[in-house]
Formats: sequence, structure tokens, C-alpha cells
Amino acid sequence: MANERLAQQLRFIIEADKLKEIFRQTLVSQSRRRENDAEHSWHLTLLVIILAEHSNVQPLDVLRVLKMLIIHDLVEIDAGDTFAYDTARMADQHEREARAADRIFGLLPPDQTSELRALWDEFEARATPEAKFAAAVDRFQPMLLNCLTEGAAWKNHGVTSDRVIARNQHIAQGATALWEHMSQMIDEAVAAGHLAK
Amino acid sequence: MANERLAQQLRFIIEADKLKEIFRQTLVSQSRRRENDAEHSWHLTLLVIILAEHSNVQPLDVLRVLKMLIIHDLVEIDAGDTFAYDTARMADQHEREARAADRIFGLLPPDQTSELRALWDEFEARATPEAKFAAAVDRFQPMLLNCLTEGAAWKNHGVTSDRVIARNQHIAQGATALWEHMSQMIDEAVAAGHLAK
Repeated sequence: MANERLAQQLRFIIEADKLKEIFRQTLVSQSRRRENDAEHSWHLTLLVIILAEHSNVQPLDVLRVLKMLIIHDLVEIDAGDTFAYDTARMADQHEREARAADRIFGLLPPDQTSELRALWDEFEARATPEAKFAAAVDRFQPMLLNCLTEGAAWKNHGVTSDRVIARNQHIAQGATALWEHMSQMIDEAVAAGHLAK
Repeated sequence: MANERLAQQLRFIIEADKLKEIFRQTLVSQSRRRENDAEHSWHLTLLVIILAEHSNVQPLDVLRVLKMLIIHDLVEIDAGDTFAYDTARMADQHEREARAADRIFGLLPPDQTSELRALWDEFEARATPEAKFAAAVDRFQPMLLNCLTEGAAWKNHGVTSDRVIARNQHIAQGATALWEHMSQMIDEAVAAGHLAK
């Protein structure tokens, strides 16, 4: 019986391996290839353990933030990555991703299906301090990579600084200090010609 | 002053982006390309939150296990990946990696340098229940991928089942159930001709 439960858990873990094939618009800083969702998710967990002290709310349940970020992009195995500035695809993004959550988290034993679905719903709703900080980090990291790659993803899609600010200013709801730092980086990217005004 | 600390933390986070360029011997299950350390580290964190109930010791400090695994391979940015069956390179592996730990964790503010170095030392010493479980998962995941790719990494390096068992049986110290399951998978891999006897 324990073995059956483990076998079911492993089917989910094997399915999750597909996250390594979902490529994003952001480039990694060294080889300048597109980053995939698995790498992105790992980088976010590192940001959390280093930057948790900058969360607006203290103390923060860091374990719950990590769990949210470890699983937050698994829905993209079915729904694909939606670029942060692709308003057309963003229209039905939540619906596509909710269907994916049903299927993918549904591979697990029922108690774990419920736990992961609750974590994903919490992340999406962005109402708790943990979800706000997780969402802040999830926006901060690709912007950091964009700044390190001379705005490659922004330039490729003709994104302007007002859209970058509108789309990402909710970082301040999770971590004011991170948003202040990023605002400076945006100004520098504009001054350097890496981001259109 | 807060801003200086944040800038120092970000230099570490930017350095860590290089982990996405460190490729391992294991292949990912879908496109069958080599897996990198960042993807591997993410997959391990997923295994932890799903499989923590199989740890021999309960309750487990899951947050500490996650932190160990998020940072455990950063030393490979300098030291490179050492294949689990490369006995020549394993001889000086710890020395190479300890030097890397000095440099890379040293990029952080002193309190965080100490915290991360202590976590890495704990992981390496494999003495606490958290480190034993982390080490178990760190060995289980590549074996799982090897089984899913018809033993590609084993075949490429002429690894035999007795060496696989000798190298990985410490999984049982962290999680007996995982080792029992893996033993069955090894038997199946031998029977299918994916792993030499």
C-alpha cells in the first residue's frame, strides 16, 4: 500500500520533468539562451532564502513561499509559458492554467492534490503575505535577467518602460525594498538604451 | 545601508545564474539532452516536498532540507560537476568544492555566508536526519532519470549494477522506502539490458 502511494507520487515527479522543456522569453546571463521554467523556479527559491528579510511582512512563512514557487509553473507543462506582456494570451491564461492544475496536481494522492492546489490557488490570488512575496520574487528575477542581458526580452517584444512599471509594480506589495531597487534598475536600463521609454 | 546589503545579496544571486551552465551526465526524460545543475536542484526540491513523508526520521525540518538542496550544487560553478562514478575526479572533489564554497558563499553578507556554509557543511557531512534525506533525494533523482532514459548515463560510462548499488545504497540511511523502490528499479534496468550486471 505504501509502495502504491510512492509509485503514484513518482508518476507526478516524472511528469514534472517536462518543466525543463518549457522555455521562457528571458535569457540567462551567461550563454544568452532562453531560460526554462525549471531553472527559473530554482533561481526563485534561491532568491527567497537570500531575500526573505526584505518582505514587507515579518515573520514570513518561508517554507510556504518555497513550496508555492517550486510548484507555481508546473501548470505551464500543459498551458505553455505566457509572456508577461502578451495581453492577447493573458486573457485566457488563468483558465488554461486552472485546467492544467486539475490534471497535473491530480496525478498525486488526493491529500497532496489538495495541498498543492491550495498552494497554487494561494499564489494566484496574491492575497496573503507569502503569496505577495512569492509574486514579487517571480517578477523581480526575470527583470534582473533582462537588465543583465541588455534588455533582450524587452527589445525582442518592443516593450516600453511604462508597461514594465505597470506590470511589475505589485512587487512593492510584497517587498518595497525590492521594488525601489528595481525602479533604479529600470531607470538605468532606459538611460543605457536597453529599455524604450 | 539596507540598499548596500541588498546590492551585495544581488551580486551573489547574479553569480548563481551560472549554475544553469553546469551540465551533468544525466539526461532529461523528454528531449534527452544533458540536465543542468539548476534544473536538477529544482527537481530535488519538488521531490522533497512530495516525498518527505518517506524520511526515516519524522518529523523532518523540511525547510532546512530545501535550503541545503537549493544551494548544494553552487560550488560546481567553480569545481564543475563530478560524475558519481568518476573515482579519479572524486579523489579531490571535496577540496575543490570547499574552495568554491569559500569564494561563492563569501559573496554574501557575513551572516548569510555563515548560514549557507553551515548548510553546505551539514549536507556534505551527511550526519543529521535532514542531510541524510537530502543526500538520499540527491542520489535518487538522477537514478530515476537514468531509468527513464534506458540507462543512458550508465551505458555511456560503462557503469555496472554493483557499482550503482555501492554508490547509492546510502539512500537507505535517509529513506528506506526510497531505497527499496530504487532496488526494484535497478533490477528492472538490469533485466531490460539498460544496466550491465
